[in-house]
Amino acid sequence: MPEQALEWLAELGQQLRVDSVRCSAAAGSGHPTSSMSAADLAAVLLARYLRYDFDAPDDPRNDHLIFSKGHASPLLYAMFKAAGAISDEELLTFRRLGSRLEGHPTPRLPWVDVATGSLGQGLPIGVGIALAGQRLDRLPYRVWVLCGDSELAEGSMWEAFEHAGYAGLDNLTAIVDVNRLGQRGPTRHGWDTAAYARRIGAFGWHTIEIDGHDVAQIDRAYAEALATSDRPTAILARTKKGKGVPEVENREGAHGKPLPDPEEAIDELGGERNLRVRVKPPEGGRGGHRFPAEPLKLPAYAVGDKVATRTAFGEALAALGAARPDVVVLDAEVSDSTRTEYFADAHPERFFQCYIAEQQMVAAAVGLRVRGWTPYAATFAAFLTRAYDFIRMAAVSRADVRLVGSHAGVSIGHDGPSQMGLEDLAAFRAVHGSTVLYPCDANQTAQLVAAMADLEGISYLRTTRGNTRVIYRPGEEFPVGGSRLLRASPEDRVAVVAAGITVHEALAAADQLAAEGIPARVIDLYSVKPVDAATLREAARDTGRLITVEDHWPEGGLGDAVLEALADTRPAPRVVRLAVRAMPTSATPAEQLHAAGIDAAAITAAARLLAA
Amino acid sequence: MPEQALEWLAELGQQLRVDSVRCSAAAGSGHPTSSMSAADLAAVLLARYLRYDFDAPDDPRNDHLIFSKGHASPLLYAMFKAAGAISDEELLTFRRLGSRLEGHPTPRLPWVDVATGSLGQGLPIGVGIALAGQRLDRLPYRVWVLCGDSELAEGSMWEAFEHAGYAGLDNLTAIVDVNRLGQRGPTRHGWDTAAYARRIGAFGWHTIEIDGHDVAQIDRAYAEALATSDRPTAILARTKKGKGVPEVENREGAHGKPLPDPEEAIDELGGERNLRVRVKPPEGGRGGHRFPAEPLKLPAYAVGDKVATRTAFGEALAALGAARPDVVVLDAEVSDSTRTEYFADAHPERFFQCYIAEQQMVAAAVGLRVRGWTPYAATFAAFLTRAYDFIRMAAVSRADVRLVGSHAGVSIGHDGPSQMGLEDLAAFRAVHGSTVLYPCDANQTAQLVAAMADLEGISYLRTTRGNTRVIYRPGEEFPVGGSRLLRASPEDRVAVVAAGITVHEALAAADQLAAEGIPARVIDLYSVKPVDAATLREAARDTGRLITVEDHWPEGGLGDAVLEALADTRPAPRVVRLAVRAMPTSATPAEQLHAAGIDAAAITAAARLLAA
Repeated sequence: MPEQALEWLAELGQQLRVDSVRCSAAAGSGHPTSSMSAADLAAVLLARYLRYDFDAPDDPRNDHLIFSKGHASPLLYAMFKAAGAISDEELLTFRRLGSRLEGHPTPRLPWVDVATGSLGQGLPIGVGIALAGQRLDRLPYRVWVLCGDSELAEGSMWEAFEHAGYAGLDNLTAIVDVNRLGQRGPTRHGWDTAAYARRIGAFGWHTIEIDGHDVAQIDRAYAEALATSDRPTAILARTKKGKGVPEVENREGAHGKPLPDPEEAIDELGGERNLRVRVKPPEGGRGGHRFPAEPLKLPAYAVGDKVATRTAFGEALAALGAARPDVVVLDAEVSDSTRTEYFADAHPERFFQCYIAEQQMVAAAVGLRVRGWTPYAATFAAFLTRAYDFIRMAAVSRADVRLVGSHAGVSIGHDGPSQMGLEDLAAFRAVHGSTVLYPCDANQTAQLVAAMADLEGISYLRTTRGNTRVIYRPGEEFPVGGSRLLRASPEDRVAVVAAGITVHEALAAADQLAAEGIPARVIDLYSVKPVDAATLREAARDTGRLITVEDHWPEGGLGDAVLEALADTRPAPRVVRLAVRAMPTSATPAEQLHAAGIDAAAITAAARLLAA
Repeated sequence: MPEQALEWLAELGQQLRVDSVRCSAAAGSGHPTSSMSAADLAAVLLARYLRYDFDAPDDPRNDHLIFSKGHASPLLYAMFKAAGAISDEELLTFRRLGSRLEGHPTPRLPWVDVATGSLGQGLPIGVGIALAGQRLDRLPYRVWVLCGDSELAEGSMWEAFEHAGYAGLDNLTAIVDVNRLGQRGPTRHGWDTAAYARRIGAFGWHTIEIDGHDVAQIDRAYAEALATSDRPTAILARTKKGKGVPEVENREGAHGKPLPDPEEAIDELGGERNLRVRVKPPEGGRGGHRFPAEPLKLPAYAVGDKVATRTAFGEALAALGAARPDVVVLDAEVSDSTRTEYFADAHPERFFQCYIAEQQMVAAAVGLRVRGWTPYAATFAAFLTRAYDFIRMAAVSRADVRLVGSHAGVSIGHDGPSQMGLEDLAAFRAVHGSTVLYPCDANQTAQLVAAMADLEGISYLRTTRGNTRVIYRPGEEFPVGGSRLLRASPEDRVAVVAAGITVHEALAAADQLAAEGIPARVIDLYSVKPVDAATLREAARDTGRLITVEDHWPEGGLGDAVLEALADTRPAPRVVRLAVRAMPTSATPAEQLHAAGIDAAAITAAARLLAA
């Protein structure tokens, strides 16, 4: 590259620094020093390697740029300004109420794929996008992820390195800004880029160590990444936090705050500039690969048969996959248990085995969704807790992602509490904009699996390990936000609100109660969020006495959802909440339900007392 | 070693296999094949290297044995039988209701330190125990962790490899049972032990690759681990799942179920044996190191001053540390924000910097607790979601662990939703046996921090980023399970239930309402779990109208806790729940509280409507 071009790139880097300083100063907060270390890396990428049409962010051929170190948002926004995507005026709205330029990037900006800011998430999500490029879209776009050195301490980064290395994702480049300083002080390895290169290289990546402030070295590294086939590349760039401003450069205590003297800093950086980058447009054919579609033929189960809802989920998902070529499925090495193996057998090209790495699985689902695919990701309900931060952040990303947890509750039986999902309803209800579904029979499961394909935000389906009786006819509809009255009469003296496995216990209890002359209503509350408040209020009005029964801890699940729905109801019903209150041990499923006090006998006993 | 000794070890391995087969057959479930692969590794360890007094499991000098692959519980229980700790009769109670021999190990057995069964947790916990040995107890005990090859896909394992390698934990040995097969099929790397050795070696560990069925090789590997100083050792042992029984050996589809023909299998393994191992006793001086203690002098704050509860937490923790030499503190690279830096400065020997690895942080806390230390672990409330599976499992372990989440809620201001803990109350309430505390002022915080030191199970303290007014006098007491009436009169027409930041909004609202002639009760519900139901019921009876207000999503937090407490109250009060209902963006703390509808103005407006 001619000297002049190198100088121009260095100037662009300084502009990105100045703009990072300026917008943070205007906001009175932000992370300018973490932006300044990566400014030269960003400048060369934007001017020479990124292929992106800022006027058409939905162009499927566009590259993807993710700031895994989301706190360097000033740098990202300075890049957007240099590319002409936002004005200088908008840049200075950083972190203000109403501005799209939030403290950490979110997809409120059309050029931001996903929200970042919880560290260690951008690279795993980038792996998902790269997988889409390699296996689904089959387009030559590249994924560039700017990582911090501190976040390499997160295990999720190593799940990503392993997944990408094994998959040979040569369309993925991790740019690690090794500025040596974390939030509160030095990182473990400081400027020892070789320490990182050894680790990342051991996971099958090509690694390049460079001076991250030398634009010629940076340029050669990106070119080398482009030229590397069969494996992803990590660029380990030695940089200085706060580079270019002596008062903060390479100093502790300067993280996450505006520069002490922004005017002086801008002077030291050579003043404001207004360089404009003509970002290269994307290349290649317009659309991506698409899979064929057939009419939807969901499985049908005969009433009275015994079928596990997890099995119905798997069979319905495989059927849905034939009708919906956008559906893709991920699993964390338990596909024989969750039953996603049926989809994997039917549609191997759209199945992603993530091994035992739940964080990477959810992140990959988010990444596949970025490219418009419709992901379902499944593991044991208990193990989705492993990915709770990723799920929380997926909601901030406004990602439409479907998660399925099998082996819910004590009813799994012998395996014991480590394998029992007992907090999943609470965790998923507390995700912004989420949908929480918990079917009790196979036909209902099939309908809900199909409905999930069109839901927005995070949706969650809870399935049961053991076989349960089919009680609904094939093709019956179960709208999200609805419920089903399984027993109802005007004389009902108590209403039992159940979902999943406990619906069957509630039905048995209602039969027993009927024999004892206590008519009991049974509500199948398969939609735990949103909840069918109207039916619950009607039950409260008609009976005045509700029993909620759930295979879950007492907090945050079905019982709380019912109490919330009834908080305004007058006259208020009496509500008894049956749930798992003691730590389970190993036992048969029936023994477990009995020990937890959520079986038919417990419901019957509670109803007798309540109706007395 | 003489040939005879090697033969005896091989025989012991066969006994462990036979007993794994027998107890799984008796249970009708379990993981015998995953036990059989590691049986020779276990035999040599038990007979020649483990130092443990099974009659005195609390002896501080004992080694620690953790089955990170907890599903190999039949092997563990077979070892206990061989050591004489349990009878053959008890072995055959495996997985039955009432048996201590659960499907996955739990500390209901005195020789089990922690519950395992969610993969990728045993090694990080082992790191915690090894840290205790190295830095706190200063005893020569060793930590032996049996790992599966599948679980090496979990990022948490790599957090552990990094932490242990960096800390030079030469008292830690990871024994990896590379049996090539996961639950549903082959692992990524199969029998390529070199692939694992490269990765683990890059993290600073000594690695040894062996044939895991050759007792002489196994013996030499353990000896080499003992002889290795300054760094931990990983033994990569190539093994066969189901070793010794042709019907299942090295075959897919044989995971997690009893052998098809147990009698024939036992024959093939040479029949039942009853070898008894004399396990070596622990060595070295009796007790461990202890730190000095001073009288407790909690910080005192003047009423009317403005102090962040996170600051009070940090100052109280440092003071507590002087009085309680058992208190140890962990942080995930945000100690300047959480304020654990005050403890780190005062008691550096008892502070553990975990860098940005929240799973390893919580695991290390559990490990330190195994050795009787009293851990407090802190990071942003939002980032504790990263460790939710570890927290869930810590409850199964009956571990007494204190977790502290700072930067709760929208009130953090500009940084945006990625940094806001908005689901933490729901997540922690849904942990079995947990305590959830949320102070509103500095003196209250100090008292609760001290009280946490003696709590059992998982306790959680939620702190606030910004300064809040000190409203309680130094030394006032705040029992767990209590609440405080901040405004109360017999004429109250509405009661506002708040905690943390919203207490101050509630007080401002009550002042405004009083000026308008609407007397309002204000309850500081600092103990969210357990909750002070009596005070809430009294407020319901006195006023008939409650407003709950929380800086948290509507689900699973303060509002739900109040509804649960009042479910039986007659007449039922009207309850309005104010909470964060829209995805926040960046804004000032005051703008955030206003936008979320949880500030004084929102409370006042709700109270006017309710009391009208």
